Amino acid sequence: MPTQFAARAAFAPQTPRRPLAWLPALLLGTASLTSAADLSTPDAERYAQATYREYLDLLSLPNDAVAPADIRKNVDWLEQAFRKRGFTTRQLANNGKPMLYAEFPNSNAARKTVLFYMHLDGQPVIPEQWAQKSPWTPVLKRKTAQGGWEAIDSAQLFSGPLDPEWRVFGRSSADDKGPIMMMLAAIDALKASGGQPAVNVKVILDSEEEKGSPTIGEVMKANHDLLRCDAMVIHDGPMHASNLPTLIFGNRGVAQAKLTVYGAKVPLHSGHYGNYAPNPAQLLASLLASMKNDQGRVTVPGYYDHVKISEADRKIMAAVPDDEAVLNRRLGIAHADKVGANYQEAMQYPSLNVRGMASAAVGDKVANIVPDTAVAELDLRTTPDSSAAYLGKLIEDHIVRQGYHLVKNTPTDEERSRYGKLASFSYQAEGADAAGSPIDSAVGKWAYKALTDSYGTNPVPVRIRMMGGTVPTADIVGVLQVPFAIIPLVNADNNQHAANENLRMGNYVSGVRTIYGLITSPL
Amino acid sequence: MPTQFAARAAFAPQTPRRPLAWLPALLLGTASLTSAADLSTPDAERYAQATYREYLDLLSLPNDAVAPADIRKNVDWLEQAFRKRGFTTRQLANNGKPMLYAEFPNSNAARKTVLFYMHLDGQPVIPEQWAQKSPWTPVLKRKTAQGGWEAIDSAQLFSGPLDPEWRVFGRSSADDKGPIMMMLAAIDALKASGGQPAVNVKVILDSEEEKGSPTIGEVMKANHDLLRCDAMVIHDGPMHASNLPTLIFGNRGVAQAKLTVYGAKVPLHSGHYGNYAPNPAQLLASLLASMKNDQGRVTVPGYYDHVKISEADRKIMAAVPDDEAVLNRRLGIAHADKVGANYQEAMQYPSLNVRGMASAAVGDKVANIVPDTAVAELDLRTTPDSSAAYLGKLIEDHIVRQGYHLVKNTPTDEERSRYGKLASFSYQAEGADAAGSPIDSAVGKWAYKALTDSYGTNPVPVRIRMMGGTVPTADIVGVLQVPFAIIPLVNADNNQHAANENLRMGNYVSGVRTIYGLITSPL
Repeated sequence: MPTQFAARAAFAPQTPRRPLAWLPALLLGTASLTSAADLSTPDAERYAQATYREYLDLLSLPNDAVAPADIRKNVDWLEQAFRKRGFTTRQLANNGKPMLYAEFPNSNAARKTVLFYMHLDGQPVIPEQWAQKSPWTPVLKRKTAQGGWEAIDSAQLFSGPLDPEWRVFGRSSADDKGPIMMMLAAIDALKASGGQPAVNVKVILDSEEEKGSPTIGEVMKANHDLLRCDAMVIHDGPMHASNLPTLIFGNRGVAQAKLTVYGAKVPLHSGHYGNYAPNPAQLLASLLASMKNDQGRVTVPGYYDHVKISEADRKIMAAVPDDEAVLNRRLGIAHADKVGANYQEAMQYPSLNVRGMASAAVGDKVANIVPDTAVAELDLRTTPDSSAAYLGKLIEDHIVRQGYHLVKNTPTDEERSRYGKLASFSYQAEGADAAGSPIDSAVGKWAYKALTDSYGTNPVPVRIRMMGGTVPTADIVGVLQVPFAIIPLVNADNNQHAANENLRMGNYVSGVRTIYGLITSPL
Repeated sequence: MPTQFAARAAFAPQTPRRPLAWLPALLLGTASLTSAADLSTPDAERYAQATYREYLDLLSLPNDAVAPADIRKNVDWLEQAFRKRGFTTRQLANNGKPMLYAEFPNSNAARKTVLFYMHLDGQPVIPEQWAQKSPWTPVLKRKTAQGGWEAIDSAQLFSGPLDPEWRVFGRSSADDKGPIMMMLAAIDALKASGGQPAVNVKVILDSEEEKGSPTIGEVMKANHDLLRCDAMVIHDGPMHASNLPTLIFGNRGVAQAKLTVYGAKVPLHSGHYGNYAPNPAQLLASLLASMKNDQGRVTVPGYYDHVKISEADRKIMAAVPDDEAVLNRRLGIAHADKVGANYQEAMQYPSLNVRGMASAAVGDKVANIVPDTAVAELDLRTTPDSSAAYLGKLIEDHIVRQGYHLVKNTPTDEERSRYGKLASFSYQAEGADAAGSPIDSAVGKWAYKALTDSYGTNPVPVRIRMMGGTVPTADIVGVLQVPFAIIPLVNADNNQHAANENLRMGNYVSGVRTIYGLITSPL
């Protein structure tokens, strides 16, 4: 989700809709909870608070996956944290950077099994960009009257009243150690209740997500039986900017493509050859213009043919509280491209984006020449039904229909003398795949019910049919082939991937409530 | 003229069509020659050879106009060379880099006056790129069997038989000291004949041509009466690649323009915003495509409206021995843009050339973003009837008609929120102007007759109505407002402006013949 989205409504701790609704079940002893149980905000805060020391400890462990030894320290630490809560654990071999598997005891066949995916590694850091001693020394901060952040004594986290607006700054505070700790706190709450979860709880912690999860598929294949489940929940990424409870059912994939148009063999004097030698920048412009119109709609035949959106989905998307007026003002655009009726709909379509373009030089180095080549770098956002191979081939065929002869490399003299229009076009047939799970799948309904049980329906939780950006969902769910939901838990303005990453402590508490609600709801 | 043009025919010294035709006139004493007199190639060679020591001396004087002291040495040297031949001279003040004026004696009102323009300054040098000790130490070379060049004893130049294929290598050997020396040798021949020229001969030597002649207009204004004439001849630039006698009647001008299309305020994540935020590279492509078609014809309304070519001119242009098949093979293009019926015709039209284009990055630095801006750098080649101001305004109006709001600088938030399409477009209303003189003006006919008297009409001299590139003709002829002809004398493959500049000695000889023919022909 675009982190630039304006926050529309604070998702502050709310009065629970059904306070202590699970207490009667607890009074019945250790029987599993057969309907969603709600954890009150004060209770969730108490269980959250009890994990804050562990949270800060965990954030003190560097976790850039370029350093396997660092990854192993995180895995060891987390393994102990899960074991201490009764989980059985196993480190899953992964080239010296093991992933962690943990399973809540007493799984039984009468309950559905949910595999929770999170990741323990973090983005690289540039320490000097951080407004604190080290990205690995977490700091508690509060907002100043001027809108900045000032450090306060983190001892305040461990006892006494908490302020949901406080934030802990540190690498992976939000992405993705925060959600792991929220799960541990939710488990603590469940254990304290004496109850059993309503689903069998399995957890896998990826160790290379920030490197694009290059091995998650292999590791899952190698541990296929262990990981067997009915559904997956992915706790990663930011919530909707409104900070309302958020469910995401898929994301677009991405593939790169490159288009080069050839002119003469060398740059030519624009006086002697302007009006004579074909200009490849001009030709490239014309070719790109034939692919997409000024309203932003791709005009390559067939590009949108596989997009199918149900009326129910359209309604759900229209209900997402995106404030496009605010967004457009922030982006500095008068209006958006006319691909979808709204932001959410636009993301359901594959894109064809010129991400870079160059021909000869501009600025200081510009010269009066007819350039010899012109290049456009493209990225194609794919959808589950419109793969990179499909879209790439459509574009390639379109280019050929515009009269181009396609070459693999710089054209030979023979090709130059034969073909009036020469270009090369390459694309990744295998990009990072899109992933999608129906909003009304069992897991979709289960997650939605758990959230509405906890937070009510006014406003309803945000349901994102498919987010525009690409995360490695396809790799994560590809092996198990089960329906899934992405349930992000952290504030959208968490500076994920950048300096000064942070987690809003109110989100920590609501995350504990959310996970508690999920694991106490039968699927 | 494009120096890349293939040499089609060697312009070797030919048997004079009318050997010694001027002798009878000479026998009549010192009366002025009333019709063109031809100098035989052996005679021309003799007078040329007599100047070769001076030529090498002159080439030994550095002449980059960044060094006024060097320019003054050249002016002093040349002033002596002209005076010794009876010219009256004057150094024309020009900020420490004087130009030289020289006038052949006995001007009289019964004859028309021709002002010959040449320049004494030269391009900067990068000595290490030259295959000789110094660009200022001229070297005589001959072609090797392998097609390279080997130095030979330059003493051979001063006596004994000459080979027209020899070349003298040195800065300004061709551009433009060679032609100055050819004129001196032609004057020597005239004086030896005891005759008078058929036109009053005035000479001006520019001292800053290679800097774009920034002061020629002022100097000519300041010396307007002194320079008064009926026509100008410019001896500069290379001949047609065929090495046939060449006349040029104009050149296109040039002006720069820059077009920037604005997208969002900052580059955006192409996943979250692809299909939502308008892409300025895509919009720029569409805008450029609206300006020019794939056949290379400008489609901005009105762009070609002022181009008028007579049938007579079309025939003259079609007769130019451009070998486009060879040219296209050399350039590596299957066919040329469809602006004119042939190369020469294409140069009669103003051009709109994308000389550089950029949006975000390509190659190593490419990223999956929607760029924030896209830039096209343009150059407009202008014609005498289609000025930079005229063409620039047409393009600007066209952009506005495509729905763009034009801004001067980066758009404000207010502009961004109001206008869906934002761009900036700037152009030089005052570029380097085009210049043109009718092919059938008095000077055009006079020059053509002088050349055909000397060289015959099979093949006919090459007449270029307007060359595509830009030289400062407009500045040179602008003050005096007289018809003109550019009569280049040096081989097209002279490496002008680059390392290893050279002059073919056969061209030196034919240049002497040409100038002799001009000054002995009544205008």
